[in-house]
Amino acid sequence: MPRLSAAQAPLLREVVIVDERGQRRPLAIPAERPLTVYVDKQELVTLMTLGAAPELLVLGWLINQRLVGDPRDIAAIDVDWDVAAAAVKTHAGIADLARRTARRVVTTGCGQGTVFGEMLDEIAAAARPDARQEPIAQATLQRVLETMRRRDSVHRRAGSVHGCALFDAGDAARLVVATEDVGRHNAIDAIAGWMALHGVAGSGKLFYTTGRLTSEMVLKAVRMGLSVVVSRNGVTAMGHELAQQLGVALFGRAANGRFLCYTGHERLVFQES
Amino acid sequence: MPRLSAAQAPLLREVVIVDERGQRRPLAIPAERPLTVYVDKQELVTLMTLGAAPELLVLGWLINQRLVGDPRDIAAIDVDWDVAAAAVKTHAGIADLARRTARRVVTTGCGQGTVFGEMLDEIAAAARPDARQEPIAQATLQRVLETMRRRDSVHRRAGSVHGCALFDAGDAARLVVATEDVGRHNAIDAIAGWMALHGVAGSGKLFYTTGRLTSEMVLKAVRMGLSVVVSRNGVTAMGHELAQQLGVALFGRAANGRFLCYTGHERLVFQES
Repeated sequence: MPRLSAAQAPLLREVVIVDERGQRRPLAIPAERPLTVYVDKQELVTLMTLGAAPELLVLGWLINQRLVGDPRDIAAIDVDWDVAAAAVKTHAGIADLARRTARRVVTTGCGQGTVFGEMLDEIAAAARPDARQEPIAQATLQRVLETMRRRDSVHRRAGSVHGCALFDAGDAARLVVATEDVGRHNAIDAIAGWMALHGVAGSGKLFYTTGRLTSEMVLKAVRMGLSVVVSRNGVTAMGHELAQQLGVALFGRAANGRFLCYTGHERLVFQES
Repeated sequence: MPRLSAAQAPLLREVVIVDERGQRRPLAIPAERPLTVYVDKQELVTLMTLGAAPELLVLGWLINQRLVGDPRDIAAIDVDWDVAAAAVKTHAGIADLARRTARRVVTTGCGQGTVFGEMLDEIAAAARPDARQEPIAQATLQRVLETMRRRDSVHRRAGSVHGCALFDAGDAARLVVATEDVGRHNAIDAIAGWMALHGVAGSGKLFYTTGRLTSEMVLKAVRMGLSVVVSRNGVTAMGHELAQQLGVALFGRAANGRFLCYTGHERLVFQES
């Protein structure tokens, strides 16, 4: 597995605001910083990030962009905040990087640029048909929401970030890993990085996000082997359609003990009362 | 000025959800659809959009990506939802398009890829130093919030979209134009498209968004000549820092008569009581 640095940077900054009544007071806001990714010394992309888990973000970004298939192809990821850079060292280079990143011209982004068609076919092939049968207990969802509600976070202290978390989908609904970042895409990418690093598959897991479930979020989840996705936020029509096609159960508006099941109704199991 | 089509597509879809008590009911969710942009028949990017103002989105995207400087360089933008395509016809091509879009590899996105450095210098040059003196009346902000609160919208009916609006910054706080899209970047791009099409400068205008004020949102606002930005959401540290450097007054957490002034405190004017 790749050797990762453990770069640290402050996640909050204190600023002074004036409110609508003219009152002045200090307020914590989340950090946001550029991180330029170099693969074998070649500049690839600049990600804007909170900085909570930069190595996992870079690893997960490379995987979710399908530039890296196996994390063992990467020797090391070294993040140095002094120069805002992540140096990725591979064992044997990334084949055809120039062509594949040129293709990114029309594919990168969140809501701003995604390629469907052939990519969709490829992702559909990654979907697990058996996932459509996995039941999801209502009580499990309630435990997930309760865990997220109680959790200390940058969001709680400063708002303006998105959180993602991976849970065991079983009755105990154990929190496996959680992360936060300025964008919902970075947050899910960091989870993908963690899963790749630890060899954890999406099967039997539940994925929680504070972000909206657009087409790209559903596609990323499918590529990560996930078939249960829960959001505090809502769902777009394309996210809904893809989830139905690819066998993902989508839950939205999930907070304070409430949720809406958008797709996978038949998998939702209510306890006897 | 470019000739624009007026492509229409449904903005809402009705789905059936099951809630946490097992109740089944219909629910409207926002549309999301791919729109592939071709410039003089060359494929450039695929944007995921609600579809409310696709021509303005494409125009504003080209401008905010700095691929087009003057809207008069564009002869026509024709959106055809049957093939999910926007055909952009220019008068004389976009000089050096291949090189400039290759550069996009490391610049496109929202929170996922932005280039600073030279771009920042260029944007700083576009900032209007005089803007730092323009006062903003507390009552104007309240009127803006009240207008947005009363407005019918896809967000009100279905949630899960971001809205942007342009207001006259004067006492009347007149709404000039508003738009919604699946991503906050698309929504601001469509406003940029509208401004370019109508020759409206950002000077004397107030920009409202439901989205978070990250670095990229502040940079886009500055490039659009705006110096007052109001968000229902929060501000990141880099958005804050750039706003201070570039003379933008940032207001966040703005809803229901309340707001926080993050930068430009000295421009905020309270009425006599």
